[in-house]
Amino acid sequence: MAGIIAPSILSADVTKLGEDVTLVEKAGAKYLHIDLMDGSFVPSMAYGPAWVKQLRPMTNLFLDVHLMAVHPENHVQALADAGADLIGVHVEATPHIHRVLQMIKKAGVKAEVVINPGTPVSAIVPVLSMVDQVLVMTVNPGFGGQAFLPEMTDKIKELMVYKKELGLDFDIEVDGGINNETAKLTADAGANVFVAGSYVYDKKDPAAKVQTLLDVTK
Amino acid sequence: MAGIIAPSILSADVTKLGEDVTLVEKAGAKYLHIDLMDGSFVPSMAYGPAWVKQLRPMTNLFLDVHLMAVHPENHVQALADAGADLIGVHVEATPHIHRVLQMIKKAGVKAEVVINPGTPVSAIVPVLSMVDQVLVMTVNPGFGGQAFLPEMTDKIKELMVYKKELGLDFDIEVDGGINNETAKLTADAGANVFVAGSYVYDKKDPAAKVQTLLDVTK
Amino acid sequence: MAGIIAPSILSADVTKLGEDVTLVEKAGAKYLHIDLMDGSFVPSMAYGPAWVKQLRPMTNLFLDVHLMAVHPENHVQALADAGADLIGVHVEATPHIHRVLQMIKKAGVKAEVVINPGTPVSAIVPVLSMVDQVLVMTVNPGFGGQAFLPEMTDKIKELMVYKKELGLDFDIEVDGGINNETAKLTADAGANVFVAGSYVYDKKDPAAKVQTLLDVTK
Amino acid sequence: MAGIIAPSILSADVTKLGEDVTLVEKAGAKYLHIDLMDGSFVPSMAYGPAWVKQLRPMTNLFLDVHLMAVHPENHVQALADAGADLIGVHVEATPHIHRVLQMIKKAGVKAEVVINPGTPVSAIVPVLSMVDQVLVMTVNPGFGGQAFLPEMTDKIKELMVYKKELGLDFDIEVDGGINNETAKLTADAGANVFVAGSYVYDKKDPAAKVQTLLDVTK
Amino acid sequence: MAGIIAPSILSADVTKLGEDVTLVEKAGAKYLHIDLMDGSFVPSMAYGPAWVKQLRPMTNLFLDVHLMAVHPENHVQALADAGADLIGVHVEATPHIHRVLQMIKKAGVKAEVVINPGTPVSAIVPVLSMVDQVLVMTVNPGFGGQAFLPEMTDKIKELMVYKKELGLDFDIEVDGGINNETAKLTADAGANVFVAGSYVYDKKDPAAKVQTLLDVTK
Amino acid sequence: MAGIIAPSILSADVTKLGEDVTLVEKAGAKYLHIDLMDGSFVPSMAYGPAWVKQLRPMTNLFLDVHLMAVHPENHVQALADAGADLIGVHVEATPHIHRVLQMIKKAGVKAEVVINPGTPVSAIVPVLSMVDQVLVMTVNPGFGGQAFLPEMTDKIKELMVYKKELGLDFDIEVDGGINNETAKLTADAGANVFVAGSYVYDKKDPAAKVQTLLDVTK
Repeated sequence: MAGIIAPSILSADVTKLGEDVTLVEKAGAKYLHIDLMDGSFVPSMAYGPAWVKQLRPMTNLFLDVHLMAVHPENHVQALADAGADLIGVHVEATPHIHRVLQMIKKAGVKAEVVINPGTPVSAIVPVLSMVDQVLVMTVNPGFGGQAFLPEMTDKIKELMVYKKELGLDFDIEVDGGINNETAKLTADAGANVFVAGSYVYDKKDPAAKVQTLLDVTK
Repeated sequence: MAGIIAPSILSADVTKLGEDVTLVEKAGAKYLHIDLMDGSFVPSMAYGPAWVKQLRPMTNLFLDVHLMAVHPENHVQALADAGADLIGVHVEATPHIHRVLQMIKKAGVKAEVVINPGTPVSAIVPVLSMVDQVLVMTVNPGFGGQAFLPEMTDKIKELMVYKKELGLDFDIEVDGGINNETAKLTADAGANVFVAGSYVYDKKDPAAKVQTLLDVTK
Repeated sequence: MAGIIAPSILSADVTKLGEDVTLVEKAGAKYLHIDLMDGSFVPSMAYGPAWVKQLRPMTNLFLDVHLMAVHPENHVQALADAGADLIGVHVEATPHIHRVLQMIKKAGVKAEVVINPGTPVSAIVPVLSMVDQVLVMTVNPGFGGQAFLPEMTDKIKELMVYKKELGLDFDIEVDGGINNETAKLTADAGANVFVAGSYVYDKKDPAAKVQTLLDVTK
Repeated sequence: MAGIIAPSILSADVTKLGEDVTLVEKAGAKYLHIDLMDGSFVPSMAYGPAWVKQLRPMTNLFLDVHLMAVHPENHVQALADAGADLIGVHVEATPHIHRVLQMIKKAGVKAEVVINPGTPVSAIVPVLSMVDQVLVMTVNPGFGGQAFLPEMTDKIKELMVYKKELGLDFDIEVDGGINNETAKLTADAGANVFVAGSYVYDKKDPAAKVQTLLDVTK
Repeated sequence: MAGIIAPSILSADVTKLGEDVTLVEKAGAKYLHIDLMDGSFVPSMAYGPAWVKQLRPMTNLFLDVHLMAVHPENHVQALADAGADLIGVHVEATPHIHRVLQMIKKAGVKAEVVINPGTPVSAIVPVLSMVDQVLVMTVNPGFGGQAFLPEMTDKIKELMVYKKELGLDFDIEVDGGINNETAKLTADAGANVFVAGSYVYDKKDPAAKVQTLLDVTK
Repeated sequence: MAGIIAPSILSADVTKLGEDVTLVEKAGAKYLHIDLMDGSFVPSMAYGPAWVKQLRPMTNLFLDVHLMAVHPENHVQALADAGADLIGVHVEATPHIHRVLQMIKKAGVKAEVVINPGTPVSAIVPVLSMVDQVLVMTVNPGFGGQAFLPEMTDKIKELMVYKKELGLDFDIEVDGGINNETAKLTADAGANVFVAGSYVYDKKDPAAKVQTLLDVTK
């Protein structure tokens, strides 16, 4: 089964976003990854619920929102109302991760827990049974110019053990430095949702890149 | 002399931003108002330096960036590098307003101080001599659905007194609920830069609306 | 006209609050002052919306809630729903004082702005026209064992000048160290609502104390 | 051996707290659970050291204080001075959990560490040897209307393993959604202190409810 | 009357501080300015109560402590115990400036209020009657390489008007870019305590520099 | 092989630091431990990059900087520029521990992760492969008068297991209450870098104390 490709709008052209989104949808991507960054939890600032709201009617892509913000609970309802299909929350961003995931589910949206490169899988074990997806960051989020961290595949393998042992059914997403090689590496470890940024939006042939990712993650 | 019209991209269509920007430029707007909101200083989240960077080469509009963020000093250099022409900082957002304005000027960008509706003009007197523009908020920033606050015109008049008394030369911008009536009202008080959001981007005729604003602020 | 006496439940017996409230109501008090303290904006912690809610049906006293909390906007709706008649917010507690006062009014509750002893009246001039009451702290709030600060009467006089000049109609409340002498002193300066704590709840004769305050503030 | 029942004053009538406390004491409860909530660590605000101080002389119940606050170290001495028998601190609320527990013990009070539903037992292993009690939250604290989370019983079992393996002697308390059924469920897993709120204070027969809890946790 | 010279240990050699302090004491300085910077209120980090404590027994200089820290109230007692003669607190650093100044005075230490370059004198009027000294920052504190801001002399003049009008007796200190020229400039405006850093500790002749400052501020 | 002794300048005489540093260098110490405390992450305030910079040219000791600060990322570059040989960062101080360690390494400095007494080893497993040193706090940092915590040796043993299993090569440092007895105890468990404060700087014979530590940690 081919993986799910989730192009990140962080690498798209913000002046013609609709066009760039349509491009990857036609190319076979199923998810659109939307990074919300608040300048506090992470140094960068980008996007907000307004983009989810305006992209929603123009695409059938699954809107996969990655919330990088302090006080994530403050943004859940606005994102759900805007049409997010999934909201991902960092375990490092709140002392109440279970509560925020509950809020997301109660709002009728799929819930994801996200872990930074320095965070162990053990930190999220209590919420594995309630999430639809786990995002294993393969770079440090919100800082520019990071290289893929190969040792993160160990966390994917550890999550696969938990899935099996606990009989759970969440997806495993990877984000950061994903290209044809790292997609294969993480797919082999167990990941099945692949966020791709500059690799896809390379000003050349996004469609071909999406296809390559689909091929290598089969 | 006609006022300067600064359409706010907060009201534009984020899926075809380049198009919406070109529209107002052709219509006679001189500034483009870009709201950066961090979800902490204000509840909403929107935009970041990436938009400034990608809009810069495609337009000749003066990029008028309104930074609504805690720790504004963290974003100054990125915005200057991205091509901002002016950066506005809230006096309520930092204990070091003079320092942040210094940083903006040192980065070669015009500097603006911004005051919330509840903040008196007296709070910014020490920095009036160093700014290029003062933004008098005519609604509370970052909260939806606010109506224009007519009592804010008193602050504009008070600023005009300071300009004259101290022999200063800053512009006075207004933001919030600006339409043909409120633009005239604030222009009469002394404002000369007018941020316009939904009034201009009304899905009908942005060019006509820009023209109206130019007419009423003469 | 006699002043309005607002006994503070901070000095009441928390194990039989209903009884202590009834006592002052019968004695002629018109307001009940309820201090919410969060342990962050002020070091002490006390009370919350639950008290407002449970006191509401058992008394006709005007519930005068003094909110000492960071992020006051987070508590406005809960307090309004609980039955508060007035909510007071510190100008020092939020960069968005105008917005929080708007929220209070929109919730159908009277709005008050509060100033600490170190805060000048000039800081609240922009919101004077929108408030029903101004609370001039006559001690530092949330710290124990403070003595009445006589120099605060200057602020009351300054507020009286603004009331007259701007044609406004807000009440002026004082809180901290109020007894028969300081009530008179502040009443003479222009205050008309008097928070009284240990002076009234002195384990002796609350009714007599309320009466004395009524007498001296005529 | 029957479990220890700890009625929560969060569900009592705040206008006649003394009466409600006496009621459960006579019914056979041994602990009184007092929730301090600061509106920052959790959204709700309630109670403070003043209640502990005023309840202390009127009851023989063990005063079991659950501190839900940022900077918990700021409140330890005041609570100890007020007469708390035990102070519980969230591991999520401080980077210095060991230090805060040390402070509690040094103040002559029993020390408890508390874990939110999303927090794994592994996070508190370094402090298990120093605590008198562990509180396993069975709902998310400080948010209204939560249902008992049955999967939390796994944490109780895990704690029982640590108790045995490390030869430790702490009590295990549960808080959230406790009634006759969930009390039995958690007692079977190893819990021996049961916080009960609305189940006990149901406006009908608190004494009967306490007795039922004693029966099912034998 | 000559001004009081307060060499700043921020410019001294930290490896032989005792020696550098003795040097300026012999040269005629009367105060020693000690900058505490916490890396949060200002970006730099430097010094703490330990320096005050260890310098106290080896010098007769008046220890003039400038506290640049969030939550200044947390450091007052430690500084007083260590032997500070005066503690200066930024009005921008706390919503409770009156309370912190009270704490300082109660600890038996002289109290100073400090204003940043962007802060108006109007912000500190309510506390002028309780302070022994006002520090007018003539650069932005805690940021390196700042030049003296000549427009700050207007604030000194404004403070002189308040001193006269209110019949007060506080000293006026200036800090930042002070040398023979700027010392004279600020002395002429009304300042009488002069913090000098690199101008005095210039690796050449500190004693001569102190003497020059004494001369120009007569 | 003898352990590495790292005298802490926190216990040195701040008025003649150069002298005290030279003393321990001659006595055989190889590291100098420099504690930066910000008054926020820990209650104490002390030291900053200026000390590293001024000590650097006068000693050959390895400058082992222990950063106790919120937002540690803000201080990394200044410390690297000043000449730090190693920077230690608390895992409890940032949600981005991997990123901060990356920054340290990229700045050409050795990287250390630090754990408080209440923090389990499991919290730092994802970063063990990237650090040069792990600091196991044997007291709570930044609070005075703490006694050595013998149970921390279990963490050292656990780290030794990870070193072996994962084939890693980091040093293990201990800090807090280290003397001849506790140095031996922790050395036996696997520690090889020993921070010593008042034990060494005892006003008697630092050189002899350093020698004793070298002897017991062989």
